[in-house]
Amino acid sequence: METHKQLTIGLFGFGVVGEGLYKVLQQTPSLKASIKKVCIKNPAKKRHAPAELFTSDKNELLQDPSINVIVEVIDDAVAAFDIVSTALNNGKSVVSASKKMIADNLPALLALQKKTDLPFLYEAAACASIPVIRNLEEYYDNDLLHSIKAIVNGSTNFILTKMFEEKLDFSEALLLAQQLGFAESNPKLDIEGYDALNKWTILLNHAYGIVSAPSEILFTGIQNVQGSDAAVAKEKGYDIKLIGQAKKLKNGKVAAFVLPQFVPVSEPLSFVKNEYNGVVIESGFADKQFFYGKGAGSFPTASAVLSDIAALRYQYKYEYKKLYHHQPHELSNDYYLKVYVSFDDWKFIPREKFEWIEEWHAQAERKYLIGVLHCNQLIGHDWWKQNATSLVLTPDAIIDDLDIIHLKKRSLELAGVI
Amino acid sequence: METHKQLTIGLFGFGVVGEGLYKVLQQTPSLKASIKKVCIKNPAKKRHAPAELFTSDKNELLQDPSINVIVEVIDDAVAAFDIVSTALNNGKSVVSASKKMIADNLPALLALQKKTDLPFLYEAAACASIPVIRNLEEYYDNDLLHSIKAIVNGSTNFILTKMFEEKLDFSEALLLAQQLGFAESNPKLDIEGYDALNKWTILLNHAYGIVSAPSEILFTGIQNVQGSDAAVAKEKGYDIKLIGQAKKLKNGKVAAFVLPQFVPVSEPLSFVKNEYNGVVIESGFADKQFFYGKGAGSFPTASAVLSDIAALRYQYKYEYKKLYHHQPHELSNDYYLKVYVSFDDWKFIPREKFEWIEEWHAQAERKYLIGVLHCNQLIGHDWWKQNATSLVLTPDAIIDDLDIIHLKKRSLELAGVI
Repeated sequence: METHKQLTIGLFGFGVVGEGLYKVLQQTPSLKASIKKVCIKNPAKKRHAPAELFTSDKNELLQDPSINVIVEVIDDAVAAFDIVSTALNNGKSVVSASKKMIADNLPALLALQKKTDLPFLYEAAACASIPVIRNLEEYYDNDLLHSIKAIVNGSTNFILTKMFEEKLDFSEALLLAQQLGFAESNPKLDIEGYDALNKWTILLNHAYGIVSAPSEILFTGIQNVQGSDAAVAKEKGYDIKLIGQAKKLKNGKVAAFVLPQFVPVSEPLSFVKNEYNGVVIESGFADKQFFYGKGAGSFPTASAVLSDIAALRYQYKYEYKKLYHHQPHELSNDYYLKVYVSFDDWKFIPREKFEWIEEWHAQAERKYLIGVLHCNQLIGHDWWKQNATSLVLTPDAIIDDLDIIHLKKRSLELAGVI
Repeated sequence: METHKQLTIGLFGFGVVGEGLYKVLQQTPSLKASIKKVCIKNPAKKRHAPAELFTSDKNELLQDPSINVIVEVIDDAVAAFDIVSTALNNGKSVVSASKKMIADNLPALLALQKKTDLPFLYEAAACASIPVIRNLEEYYDNDLLHSIKAIVNGSTNFILTKMFEEKLDFSEALLLAQQLGFAESNPKLDIEGYDALNKWTILLNHAYGIVSAPSEILFTGIQNVQGSDAAVAKEKGYDIKLIGQAKKLKNGKVAAFVLPQFVPVSEPLSFVKNEYNGVVIESGFADKQFFYGKGAGSFPTASAVLSDIAALRYQYKYEYKKLYHHQPHELSNDYYLKVYVSFDDWKFIPREKFEWIEEWHAQAERKYLIGVLHCNQLIGHDWWKQNATSLVLTPDAIIDDLDIIHLKKRSLELAGVI
């Protein structure tokens, strides 16, 4: 039986997550964790806690030697990085929920952890209540991880669910999401995929040891998905989901992106509706593992923060095993994608970029095609995001066997199709 | 960066799991784990591995000081306990997949771990590839776990799925399961709930710190579930699943059992079909978490064993936090259950045991009722398992608020119903 560290917490942020955390720590003395001070931006605002708990001077937390844990649940990524790095440098363990801050500063944060040898935990930063980082780090800690596919943004999943199940237009669904508090008032970060991209940057590290800037990863959001795309998907027995995916290729490197995808309704990710998140992990022998839970919102976020705090009692640290203990993987652009593209006019579609086009439906007002192209035709280009063009991956979209590409092209040439 | 222990393994058992493990360890040098010797029962049998690897003398493994890990994947619970306890006493770490052995010997195994301070890991013993023990131990390591509900037996779930989806009779579905290798040739252990009960005994320990003998837990299997039960369930929008459940009651103790249950089709466990397993964890703040994966078969079992072996490189041990670091919970019989019971004749039903009966359908050949009774009317009795009587819990079956019981009874008395 170990002795547990008594945790004295300095908390940054007292919004819904921060306040929820404060309450549950009061009600759970067995956690041996108490909040000594809370740093807030606006001292004038009325709070449901004793006034002496609050300060707007960050140094009252960061310089207090009796505080051994900093918990940071604020919105501002720049301020959050400053807090986290100062805290680590001052010898304090840190728990954070700031995905953007972590994704933007991954190399610096890794260096800080190496230098200080202190715990920096952030389960809440990806899929909130689903313990995906911990499981990638501890349980899937070998190099047998074939792929990981996940719905990591609750807002866009809510909108897509409403478009499918209640046939709402995109704009109606977005409005509903905002009314219910599932989307930011400036929804661009969710809708255009930036939030999912940040989470994916973090998970790529724990899944494969990849240290990548968000800007290096192929991505888009659901801003161009239309009701007609949903109708086509339904006809084919698919849902459309915004999915982060990473897959080990035959060349030993990893293909990774965040893109809308067709998901067969028999697949676990199709079960993930509304504001929920889901993660499917394929590893050697284990077949598919599916983790599902609430991925956004104050309570699920607070629950993940709480589990991190609980882990600090046992001096738990991420070891970044894929990065430091195995040969870390590299990202690869050496693969093709089979995609569905819907559009208003053929003039927006650079047909020469496709290896071949298998299906085209040019009659309806909203046209679409299904074709195969190299991922380099998407990375660094934006024809597929402009002019209301909507690109959705087909199921099993990744093709990294060049023989298949050559054979298929040859047979289509012989048939006179291309 | 830690240095990792080089693992030299003595393996007991070379069936599908053992042989799979041998192959993957050969292909994965990064795991730094190699099998030095394999102990088998039948030395005459032809094996796909060098002959010098094998022995039928257990002491060649257990007494070899160069072997620091014993992996045990045999079928015989008594022999397995002997192997595991000798190995621990001889200073070796142990990985096991023998749920029956662990469930039957929990107090002795806990004492051995305390005495030797050595890792004894057995993720494969519950839900195979789903890392449920590790997550209960590490991630849900606080006392905020409200409930856990799980499908832990793939064979029975396969049979129920076929009864629902293809309207097969119980015996037809069982035959199909046996043909496909999802059920034992003597299927009693699966069908009558013994296997699920063993897994549930193990999970109760990691979820709540409960050390209980399997015989102390209320349980049955699916041996009496009939096609007509499936039809009633479908009408109500439910599936029937064999579910292990544990729930914290208002009195702070835990209700736990393994029983067939109605599951609304919107619930995650309804998504678990065929030979898959699923676990739903409800904890403070996190809402529902759902874990899903293959719960039986050689590859999923090997994958769990492999993750345990990988964890040994970091000297990982279960800490049994709920048992040793928190106030462990006790089992309680202080609750009522709302149940569906189908039967051939009223004479098999002791109506006086019910607090009240809300619904009865006495016209059809196969009759049924829905009523509320105290769990002590089931525990230690078997009227509800005999004479082809079939008992299925309703959704949210547990009632532990006595006021509700009294109010409801009073209102039914006033209405002249009882």
